[in-house]
Amino acid sequence: MTIEAIVFDAYGTIYDAQSVAALAEAAFPGHGDYITQVWRIKQLEYTWLRSLMGRYADFWTVTKDALAYTLATLGLEPDAALLERISASYNTLSPYADARPALEALSDYRLAILSNGSPAMLDALVRDSALDDRISTIISADAAGAFKPDPRCYALVEQRLGVPPTAVLFVSSNGFDVAGAKSFGFRVARIERTPPAALRRELTDGPPIGPSALFKALRSQAEHMGLQPDCVVNSLTALPELAANLFPNVRSTPGQAAAGG
Amino acid sequence: MTIEAIVFDAYGTIYDAQSVAALAEAAFPGHGDYITQVWRIKQLEYTWLRSLMGRYADFWTVTKDALAYTLATLGLEPDAALLERISASYNTLSPYADARPALEALSDYRLAILSNGSPAMLDALVRDSALDDRISTIISADAAGAFKPDPRCYALVEQRLGVPPTAVLFVSSNGFDVAGAKSFGFRVARIERTPPAALRRELTDGPPIGPSALFKALRSQAEHMGLQPDCVVNSLTALPELAANLFPNVRSTPGQAAAGG
Repeated sequence: MTIEAIVFDAYGTIYDAQSVAALAEAAFPGHGDYITQVWRIKQLEYTWLRSLMGRYADFWTVTKDALAYTLATLGLEPDAALLERISASYNTLSPYADARPALEALSDYRLAILSNGSPAMLDALVRDSALDDRISTIISADAAGAFKPDPRCYALVEQRLGVPPTAVLFVSSNGFDVAGAKSFGFRVARIERTPPAALRRELTDGPPIGPSALFKALRSQAEHMGLQPDCVVNSLTALPELAANLFPNVRSTPGQAAAGG
Repeated sequence: MTIEAIVFDAYGTIYDAQSVAALAEAAFPGHGDYITQVWRIKQLEYTWLRSLMGRYADFWTVTKDALAYTLATLGLEPDAALLERISASYNTLSPYADARPALEALSDYRLAILSNGSPAMLDALVRDSALDDRISTIISADAAGAFKPDPRCYALVEQRLGVPPTAVLFVSSNGFDVAGAKSFGFRVARIERTPPAALRRELTDGPPIGPSALFKALRSQAEHMGLQPDCVVNSLTALPELAANLFPNVRSTPGQAAAGG
């Protein structure tokens, strides 16, 4: 089976979720890093918990709820308008520097995003970053009424693209998403944005462990759940060469089935 | 409908999961607090992720995997025997000081534990703490092949005790568990072991935010998912009075149905 589509996670893989820190710091001076990290950790916790409880609410709601939780720990009770305004920073995240070059170099492949983001959030994000000319299909977990790693989310790829799981190369920097995609049956490339050695130095040689280091400790490393990716690279720009070498038959032109291999 | 059973969460509610810190510090000097917090956070993450992926493994496996992940972030690769030895500290956690007095004062009620812990872990824990004379029924999520807040776990209570959800008072300090139990249909008392004002002071007036403060920020506060407990108390010893006043008809003797009300 050859690879017919390359599907990307959005938050943390193409887009840097840390880029909300500036707005958070401006809104709550001295607390920007703390808010950024707890907000992101809690945001994902809420996606998992809501999926498990069968109480789906879309990622925009979850993002605002997680921010409200985070601010409440500081004794802050912002009104709905402020929660909306700060949460909107998730719609203007910066793409990582490797995103556009990698997507351009992969232009012969069918490229899609599969993300927890609501349709409106993802549309805004991709348009704001001017990557809408690179990514042909945006798939929101919203259509499954659940969040990753619920397998119903990964099943949306075949429903939308008509490509079976074994013909998909899924790309994510998020350990839980790598495990979920692998569990589902995709081929998976993990983008290692924080090398283990760098994290180790930060945890052992650096200043006291603060929110940013703890976030990286919790969410940047490969999970230990027995679901390993097919390959690990440190940048999205490694994907074209990886696709050509590790998956030699992946190259296909849009709208045309890949040659059998 | 009157209350017929009081069902307790174990880790964090009756037992202090922080009591693994001494062994962790002894095994890895200078890293005890970091290991304790990341281990516990990751342990619960793995329960949620495995439940979502449909890849259940019991809590003993999850506990060891989460410890292995945590130690790997420090560049440590302990062998299986060391992972077993340190993980065994979860089987000898200290009960909170309020646990025994509260359970004794509630001796007229049917008392049970519903926990993520594996049957062997829970048996060891309750026996080690000599609370086996107080708690008549130990229910492990293992029987559901999933972890809380998957509703299949809470459904075990009726299967084991024959008591419908609305006749159960569920007691937990864990926000996700409070939400899950409320979502399922139990009456729920939340034990607030970290008051919001104390956390706020620690986050804003204290030393730099380290692993312990971040753990409390993430896991000790009420969640923002629209699923509020019926009541919040700061100690298990408040339960008898709460039961008598808030649920005036709860009192029943073991083996005897409560009076209708």
